[in-house]
Amino acid sequence: MALDSRWFTEEWAEQGAAISLEIKRKLHEEQSPYQRIEIWETGTFGRLMTLDGLVMVTDRDNFIYHEMMSHPVLFTHPKPESVLIIGGGDCGTLHEVLKHPVKQVTQVELDERVTRVAEQFFPALCASNNDPRARLRFADGIQWVKDAEAGSHDVIIVDGTDPIGPAAGLFSEAFYKNCLRTLRPGGLIVGQSESPLFHAGLIMAMHQALRGAGFKDVQTLHFPQCTYPSGWWSATLAGKNGSVANFRAQDARNKTFATRYYNAAVHQGALALPEFLQNQLRVASSE
Amino acid sequence: MALDSRWFTEEWAEQGAAISLEIKRKLHEEQSPYQRIEIWETGTFGRLMTLDGLVMVTDRDNFIYHEMMSHPVLFTHPKPESVLIIGGGDCGTLHEVLKHPVKQVTQVELDERVTRVAEQFFPALCASNNDPRARLRFADGIQWVKDAEAGSHDVIIVDGTDPIGPAAGLFSEAFYKNCLRTLRPGGLIVGQSESPLFHAGLIMAMHQALRGAGFKDVQTLHFPQCTYPSGWWSATLAGKNGSVANFRAQDARNKTFATRYYNAAVHQGALALPEFLQNQLRVASSE
Repeated sequence: MALDSRWFTEEWAEQGAAISLEIKRKLHEEQSPYQRIEIWETGTFGRLMTLDGLVMVTDRDNFIYHEMMSHPVLFTHPKPESVLIIGGGDCGTLHEVLKHPVKQVTQVELDERVTRVAEQFFPALCASNNDPRARLRFADGIQWVKDAEAGSHDVIIVDGTDPIGPAAGLFSEAFYKNCLRTLRPGGLIVGQSESPLFHAGLIMAMHQALRGAGFKDVQTLHFPQCTYPSGWWSATLAGKNGSVANFRAQDARNKTFATRYYNAAVHQGALALPEFLQNQLRVASSE
Repeated sequence: MALDSRWFTEEWAEQGAAISLEIKRKLHEEQSPYQRIEIWETGTFGRLMTLDGLVMVTDRDNFIYHEMMSHPVLFTHPKPESVLIIGGGDCGTLHEVLKHPVKQVTQVELDERVTRVAEQFFPALCASNNDPRARLRFADGIQWVKDAEAGSHDVIIVDGTDPIGPAAGLFSEAFYKNCLRTLRPGGLIVGQSESPLFHAGLIMAMHQALRGAGFKDVQTLHFPQCTYPSGWWSATLAGKNGSVANFRAQDARNKTFATRYYNAAVHQGALALPEFLQNQLRVASSE
């Protein structure tokens, strides 16, 4: 069957696959200095934000991504007080981070318009933007980390787009070196690391770049994400000093806030890598 | 963008979403007594089999489904010797089951043409069809289990299609009662149970039907499956007598055969249900 104009389609370049969402109407469109921002009302996924035609967030399934970008790293750090988010313009990750007793969260998003549009069309994701612990800055995250004070953060969350265009630098060893410097002793970094099925090569390159930058332990977590390429996504976590395989499981079990995907058992399970990925990472790390 | 005729598209009815795979050409099509069987050469997913226009199997991602339909249940049973597969016409599950030291596997597929076409176009999945331990039967699985000798199997694997049309009966309490009777003491059943994101209601109904039929413990496992609706799939496991939360982890760690997705840690991780599903199952089981 062919899909008509009532559908939004994202073709996953080089993967010979595409996902489509049924659209009721377009609610907003604008060209920001950086990209084309569009908001759609879908049939069953609630609202959809696309940037340059790529799915960023839908009401229906964003909870998995945002919870898995925040709670695993925060329950791995013994006492996260100062958090830096690079990217994250829709503010969903920020909202999850602020459920923890952190002291300050600085979010550095390149495109202020993404955040302003999210505030208008995704109010639930932006519900904590006025939390006194949140500082929203609109600037280049790569430059920000270069200029940042050494040892100023416990956790860095890299919530950027695909490694093409301006976000490509967010996957480089040079960037990770600056992140390492910016972290306090015991500090942790986590970054979105694409699809285990489609982008295993990128995950391996990211492990290599993080280790090359001086991070001591690197672990990938995986989780479903319906509207991202292949429906399967990952985040890669690394520690400035110690291991990141263990976490505060007791605190995660007794968490004082609601989640829809994350819990302590899910955290442990997300660290269990498929055999093919484990084998590829083992070969890569022994080379 | 709109996709042209170079794409195969499956619309996920009622979910307002669709997946498309780039197609090079159609290799085969026929109308069997039960359904329309088509084989396609895709751009990057290898070969694709569809039944009545729905994706059944692709070369690229079938390993996850077939491994998760077989190894968790077989490593949960203490000593599986006699296995019954209902459905499973592409023979991928059968191939995985035969990696274990089982004595006999009976596969009951309704549509012989699905198996014959799979033998021709998916030789890797059918590589064990001539194993002397395998018995291929072409008949109605629901009737087969009704007629089966009591206590004749250790494990039943229900590898059917979506719960519409002839496969709907594979999700009913009446069917599960016959399965229970067919199982030996300590016997286990596992059935594919659709998408946690799209079909949580079906998963709950399946738990209820299995418990209603007399199964003592019911657990759902989840895993990614790119080309099935939402890219996220599940299997639901139940025991005739005891718990199914524990498994032979040491044997799984020391498995003597290769897998690409499954391993002992992945098995444990697949049992860790997302918070929303756990909450819904908790509410449903207390009603």
